[in-house]
Amino acid sequence: MANNVKDILEEMKNLSELMLDLGYSSVFFKSKDIANEVLLLDEKMKELEQELYMHLLAASRGSPNEKLVGIIEIVESARFVGRAAKNLSELTLKSDSLHPIIKEAIEQSDETIARAHVGKSSVLVNKSLYDSKLESELALKIIAIRRSGKKWIFNPGKDTKVMEDDILIAVGSKNGCAKLRRIAKGRKIR
Amino acid sequence: MANNVKDILEEMKNLSELMLDLGYSSVFFKSKDIANEVLLLDEKMKELEQELYMHLLAASRGSPNEKLVGIIEIVESARFVGRAAKNLSELTLKSDSLHPIIKEAIEQSDETIARAHVGKSSVLVNKSLYDSKLESELALKIIAIRRSGKKWIFNPGKDTKVMEDDILIAVGSKNGCAKLRRIAKGRKIR
Repeated sequence: MANNVKDILEEMKNLSELMLDLGYSSVFFKSKDIANEVLLLDEKMKELEQELYMHLLAASRGSPNEKLVGIIEIVESARFVGRAAKNLSELTLKSDSLHPIIKEAIEQSDETIARAHVGKSSVLVNKSLYDSKLESELALKIIAIRRSGKKWIFNPGKDTKVMEDDILIAVGSKNGCAKLRRIAKGRKIR
Repeated sequence: MANNVKDILEEMKNLSELMLDLGYSSVFFKSKDIANEVLLLDEKMKELEQELYMHLLAASRGSPNEKLVGIIEIVESARFVGRAAKNLSELTLKSDSLHPIIKEAIEQSDETIARAHVGKSSVLVNKSLYDSKLESELALKIIAIRRSGKKWIFNPGKDTKVMEDDILIAVGSKNGCAKLRRIAKGRKIR
């Protein structure tokens, strides 16, 4: 059980960090797409939390165990962060107009964040991130991949293979992100 | 004032992300040094928050302004995250013994986090991060630098110069982090 709990804790940590990153990004880059990803991550967080408590309950055999306090505090912190990220996303989803200060920040920045869905006919399918040259040629950083609906890959490495139906979350120039969307859709060979 | 508010918001965002990163790191790598850095960042966060509200108050000329709601929600989220990070650090600071599951996670991982104080006689003084070769030769990633007590540099670039008295926060192998501490102290040329 130790390994399971450790893995779940690490995943909650990664999840909360990604949620925060995307939550802020949704506001600063005014992206409802990204805000919706945060809500999906929040679902995942709830599942992990339940799973973890099941393990802990089994470990303590129903009786309270003060040694578990440290673990519960980590879980609470991750959830706290997740909630903050969710608030940021909801702010993005419910606001039709942006505060002028945030609007100005967006216009001044060339950087943006994109969510791209990989279609069947995309040249990216079955290529590693390295071979896809997204990072080297489009100067994009792929910060996460959502696979088969609810599986998340955090900070994918250069050997990570892109698969059909993946959702790629990328940070880069507005131009690079627009190109990524076209390449992922399969509309553009390059 | 727009620029000031924008800059402060961005700094709060960076600060909260760094706090979270260090908060988790303090627990997972059992580092009271890093936990203490989080408490310093928390002070900085409070200062920024006060500064921001002064600007907003001036902008609204004392009367409430519903357009500011979006901004206040961002501030609240950053503070929320900061509080979670602080809780993680306090967990590290107050616990003498680690939960066995966390202990095991630490022992299994070769990665760690280090805080290194740059002494007067260190070869790092006045060198850029690139020239210092910390990243290339020791495979360390410098994630933040604290300068002259309370100024923070987030995600320093390769051109960022190291200065005497800097506090470097680095992530890397246990071996690399130990070497960094010696080099920073000036005890070792390399």
